[in-house]
Amino acid sequence: MLDAAAELALAGGAGANVDAIAARAGVSRTTVYKWWPSAAAVLLEGLLDRTHGTIEAPLSATTREALETFLSSLVVLVRDTPAGVLLRGLIAASVADPAVSRALVDDWIAPRRAAIVNLLTDGELRGEVRPGLDHDVVVDALFAPIYYRLMLAHEPLTDSLPTDILAICWPGITTERTEP
Amino acid sequence: MLDAAAELALAGGAGANVDAIAARAGVSRTTVYKWWPSAAAVLLEGLLDRTHGTIEAPLSATTREALETFLSSLVVLVRDTPAGVLLRGLIAASVADPAVSRALVDDWIAPRRAAIVNLLTDGELRGEVRPGLDHDVVVDALFAPIYYRLMLAHEPLTDSLPTDILAICWPGITTERTEP
Repeated sequence: MLDAAAELALAGGAGANVDAIAARAGVSRTTVYKWWPSAAAVLLEGLLDRTHGTIEAPLSATTREALETFLSSLVVLVRDTPAGVLLRGLIAASVADPAVSRALVDDWIAPRRAAIVNLLTDGELRGEVRPGLDHDVVVDALFAPIYYRLMLAHEPLTDSLPTDILAICWPGITTERTEP
Repeated sequence: MLDAAAELALAGGAGANVDAIAARAGVSRTTVYKWWPSAAAVLLEGLLDRTHGTIEAPLSATTREALETFLSSLVVLVRDTPAGVLLRGLIAASVADPAVSRALVDDWIAPRRAAIVNLLTDGELRGEVRPGLDHDVVVDALFAPIYYRLMLAHEPLTDSLPTDILAICWPGITTERTEP
């Protein structure tokens, strides 16, 4: 079922419903609903399953390097794969549908945010990240611009966006004294 | 017509169509279409007209103070007035409807971004803002977290969000040497 959902998701199927997923997987609607509360939840879990590699960074990386890896992976994922269309569609649908909103936040946003918060906490322990920052706001300042450009398309998702974001945000995150 | 659109917009009418606007203003559909390309464009111009005060900051303010004023106004606007529901609805609708997308970017996002870019350019001339920053990315890093929380509601739009965002982003924007 996850394979079926991933294929539908990556084929740009933000609108794929439980019937489509069930048909593709060769199971009944009831079977799908036994395991997931909504089509959005299956699509997101399928997508997560396929793109798991995008939330890994080398263990030897500094906090800044790891943040750049995560930011670049997200830019590539939403710009160069059908995951971008899926996420735009799901974010749009989440406004009117609480089940989509819950799946999006619980299955997609929350695990990614948790990985970044862990990274920041480790960075704080290693003395690379200032103590006392609100890590939720750090995650938003770094990653929200990518979702904002994905949704509004007012500016392009460029290859240099991760470096540009870090040029602005990193001095406020690091314990190093940075030269203006 | 703008008054009618503003009232509909502020009553939470992201779904208000040209018929509703024409009926409220006591004009014909044709008259509305003579002046605006879409319902979204009239709603946004009506909203812009009513909320114009929110994009003013005292001339004597420093760049940082002015940024905080703009950020706080946006938090209050999207959290405490029906403009938040309207913007969520229009951002969601923009994904499937290029006319809504165009109205949203041209009439709402672009003038606000231009005001902040002007502020940053003035700040650069006054020696408060580092030269060489990509001002579009600065605007995104500062303002995207508010739209991101508006859309996903994964974290609340708190009163302290503007200060928290500036605590992270300001050291990378200012020419002052900041202590970690």
